[in-house]
Amino acid sequence: MEFTASQIASFIDGRIIGDENALITGVSPIENGESGHLSFIAQDRFSHFLDTSKCSVLIVSEKLLEKDSYNATIIAVKDAYLSFQVLMNLYQEMQGRKEGIEDGSSIHSTAVIGEKVYIGAFTYVSEKAKIGEGTQIYPHVYVGKGVKIGKNCKIDSGARIYDYCVIGDNCVIHSNTVVGGDGFGFQPTPDGFKKIPQLGNVIIEDDVEIGSNCSIDRATIGSTIIGKGTKIDNLIQIAHNVKIGQNNVIAAQAGIAGSTIIGNWNQIGGQVGIVGHINIGNQVKIQAQSGVNNNVEDGDVLYGSPAISASDFRRNYVHFRNFTEIVSRINNLENNSKDKTNE
Amino acid sequence: MEFTASQIASFIDGRIIGDENALITGVSPIENGESGHLSFIAQDRFSHFLDTSKCSVLIVSEKLLEKDSYNATIIAVKDAYLSFQVLMNLYQEMQGRKEGIEDGSSIHSTAVIGEKVYIGAFTYVSEKAKIGEGTQIYPHVYVGKGVKIGKNCKIDSGARIYDYCVIGDNCVIHSNTVVGGDGFGFQPTPDGFKKIPQLGNVIIEDDVEIGSNCSIDRATIGSTIIGKGTKIDNLIQIAHNVKIGQNNVIAAQAGIAGSTIIGNWNQIGGQVGIVGHINIGNQVKIQAQSGVNNNVEDGDVLYGSPAISASDFRRNYVHFRNFTEIVSRINNLENNSKDKTNE
Amino acid sequence: MEFTASQIASFIDGRIIGDENALITGVSPIENGESGHLSFIAQDRFSHFLDTSKCSVLIVSEKLLEKDSYNATIIAVKDAYLSFQVLMNLYQEMQGRKEGIEDGSSIHSTAVIGEKVYIGAFTYVSEKAKIGEGTQIYPHVYVGKGVKIGKNCKIDSGARIYDYCVIGDNCVIHSNTVVGGDGFGFQPTPDGFKKIPQLGNVIIEDDVEIGSNCSIDRATIGSTIIGKGTKIDNLIQIAHNVKIGQNNVIAAQAGIAGSTIIGNWNQIGGQVGIVGHINIGNQVKIQAQSGVNNNVEDGDVLYGSPAISASDFRRNYVHFRNFTEIVSRINNLENNSKDKTNE
Repeated sequence: MEFTASQIASFIDGRIIGDENALITGVSPIENGESGHLSFIAQDRFSHFLDTSKCSVLIVSEKLLEKDSYNATIIAVKDAYLSFQVLMNLYQEMQGRKEGIEDGSSIHSTAVIGEKVYIGAFTYVSEKAKIGEGTQIYPHVYVGKGVKIGKNCKIDSGARIYDYCVIGDNCVIHSNTVVGGDGFGFQPTPDGFKKIPQLGNVIIEDDVEIGSNCSIDRATIGSTIIGKGTKIDNLIQIAHNVKIGQNNVIAAQAGIAGSTIIGNWNQIGGQVGIVGHINIGNQVKIQAQSGVNNNVEDGDVLYGSPAISASDFRRNYVHFRNFTEIVSRINNLENNSKDKTNE
Repeated sequence: MEFTASQIASFIDGRIIGDENALITGVSPIENGESGHLSFIAQDRFSHFLDTSKCSVLIVSEKLLEKDSYNATIIAVKDAYLSFQVLMNLYQEMQGRKEGIEDGSSIHSTAVIGEKVYIGAFTYVSEKAKIGEGTQIYPHVYVGKGVKIGKNCKIDSGARIYDYCVIGDNCVIHSNTVVGGDGFGFQPTPDGFKKIPQLGNVIIEDDVEIGSNCSIDRATIGSTIIGKGTKIDNLIQIAHNVKIGQNNVIAAQAGIAGSTIIGNWNQIGGQVGIVGHINIGNQVKIQAQSGVNNNVEDGDVLYGSPAISASDFRRNYVHFRNFTEIVSRINNLENNSKDKTNE
Repeated sequence: MEFTASQIASFIDGRIIGDENALITGVSPIENGESGHLSFIAQDRFSHFLDTSKCSVLIVSEKLLEKDSYNATIIAVKDAYLSFQVLMNLYQEMQGRKEGIEDGSSIHSTAVIGEKVYIGAFTYVSEKAKIGEGTQIYPHVYVGKGVKIGKNCKIDSGARIYDYCVIGDNCVIHSNTVVGGDGFGFQPTPDGFKKIPQLGNVIIEDDVEIGSNCSIDRATIGSTIIGKGTKIDNLIQIAHNVKIGQNNVIAAQAGIAGSTIIGNWNQIGGQVGIVGHINIGNQVKIQAQSGVNNNVEDGDVLYGSPAISASDFRRNYVHFRNFTEIVSRINNLENNSKDKTNE
């Protein structure tokens, strides 16, 4: 990364105050600015960094500017936050995509590999797998038999995609996530547990992103489904036959048990647990660490383990925090009552 | 997968009603039947699918049949659920086992590999490791020094089995699970934490299944043990020197801290945490998200964090849900009491 | 491992009682001693094992010895626990370090590899990565572009270190841990979530140990930081832009959300969740399964979800356990009150 202030200004249509040749070689958060770096100021409460930041170039919202010159070179724009995002996306794109089949990968002769695909060394592609145009598969990935991966996906190093799973277009699957491992299904017998074959698959629709170290189990029969546009953080458990709708956001270390059905546009907090065989509606919010063990209506906000309405939970928890005091009030009442009885 | 109704009927000794040449190419859950697929109906509450399912062939319990013909081809059996299980197991077996050493694996010259073993590309087998007859090791597995793996195991892509760990017969270890990583042992000193060497191993007895992305740490000295027939879901933490007995079932994201001892036939729910150095008896049930911090007697059912008797927890939690109302009852009592005092 | 009692005694300057040629081939915990094994007795409550242990050689604290001879060969020392630690460290060192580049690894021509480095088969080192002297990288590791790894580190099989991340000296990273995966950052739009590029990195300072299957996300901009001497257990989530200070201990399955700042010498229990954008001081203790959603002062001890002072939590939880009884006391008070009103 090496840009001048004037190059950056041209990308985002900004006005330069200061040295248009100022060189930046990296990006800093505004709280930890470094010389030679770029940052941005979009809110009044960060305006004091205009004078104190060590950054060489600052993108600043016009309305925050009051002086004719600053230590740093300023690039004035209408909305510094948006301009900065534009810039970061541009930068990301400039990094380019990888392309080509690296030596040392193992690709079955019956696999179908699209154009402009990248397959890293030590990646294993099984028979009859299909990999769509422009998809990048990093080293050490396992792609099972008959797997279909769409276009423009990115599959990070160490991900495992098991037999017959299907991944849509524009999906990102981060490192060491396992898609299509066996569901956890065993029949108890007097001699021990007998495995129930897990013969279904996982279907991941378009525009899904799944973080690292997740486990998405295949269905017993049929499919475990992750709907279009849903984003899943790290270390998350999705059990067999779960069906998740569109545009959900699921935070790290949450777990969803078997056969539960989840609608659209829900927000599921970190370390949340959801039991099996229930229905979660749409636009539901579940606070971190909650445990959901019943159907949930559209728009509900839940908290607690087991989860109840978040406002009820918070109110009740205030009483829990004062429980010792509440008990001494009861003690007093009892003492008073006895006193009266004795009177 | 491609079978005719008559082939399927012959496997499970069923009676055909309809087209014995009806072709099936897949299996559906009854709620999401697809044309060309097989499903089953074993319970009265699913009987309406007899007329409405899109499946081409349905295995149905005799007692649920009332008509002479249906849209789908019917295979009548005594117990449709059992027959379907038989069929799924048969199908699983038909898939066959993999066999042979793939090019691109790395096997130390001192390793001992049994007959009919499969070792996938990019799998690394260290010196003096032993792999039993018929065991299948998928690509990208790491097998450490002196590891012993029994017969007929399946070790999925990306599993790591560290030095001197021992795995019995008929075990399944899913992708990216780590067996025998160092236990978390550090001695505090004024300058920081000093690592305590972790020199023990992990012993996994026969018929154990461990899901994906689990961490089973090696003992400091001696062995961490997973007993015969125990089944472990995904993303589970088993710390150093834990000893787990036979036929336990442990759900996803549970964690068991160091040196805890667990008996037989226990059910441990998802996201449960169990502290170190305690004893859990037999046939104990621990509800999801509970936190167990004391010894547990045989047959106990626990819930809550910290966990108490599940029935107590549920009863108390009902009061917690009504805490605001309970506090206003106390307010009333106090007001009444004051009124009386003022009287 | 094969040593005589006299060899062991010489390592720890001990006095032999019994057969100085007694041979040991392994180590046992004292509760499960095996013939041919070594163990130790440092506390009075284990003294009965002096007569009953099956171990061939026992290291024992002088003050616990009362007889002239025992079944086992005794090595008498001042503090048996310390001597045993010395021995275990010695043994660990004797195992040696691996060295050399194994066939079948893939190392970019622009990578800089220090002296005495071990790089296992199937490990992938990208362009311009630097690996310091004496560092051991096991098979199946992914090292991204421009990554810097210091001296004397150990990176276990299947770890993933993404582009531009920096690891200090003497660090240990266990299997399948992902360092530098994308932070979980998405902007909601009416059409779905738009990915915010994650352009920062992860900096891991010297003497850090990270367990298996952890996810340490890269910063959006700037760095996610794990401070010197901090020890992290397995299956832990560290989100983007988190900054963790020195000498913290974080137990398994804990999760820390984005941009939270943590001081030094804190103890964070298993399955703890910490929300984003808060500050945790120094020498704080957070009990297992707690959920922290506010800034925390130095020295605080927290418990509960949401977490409060641990002593308050414990006191209140005792009342929660007796909630049914408390409610019946309130019922009584109400009945009494009515009775009086009726009087």
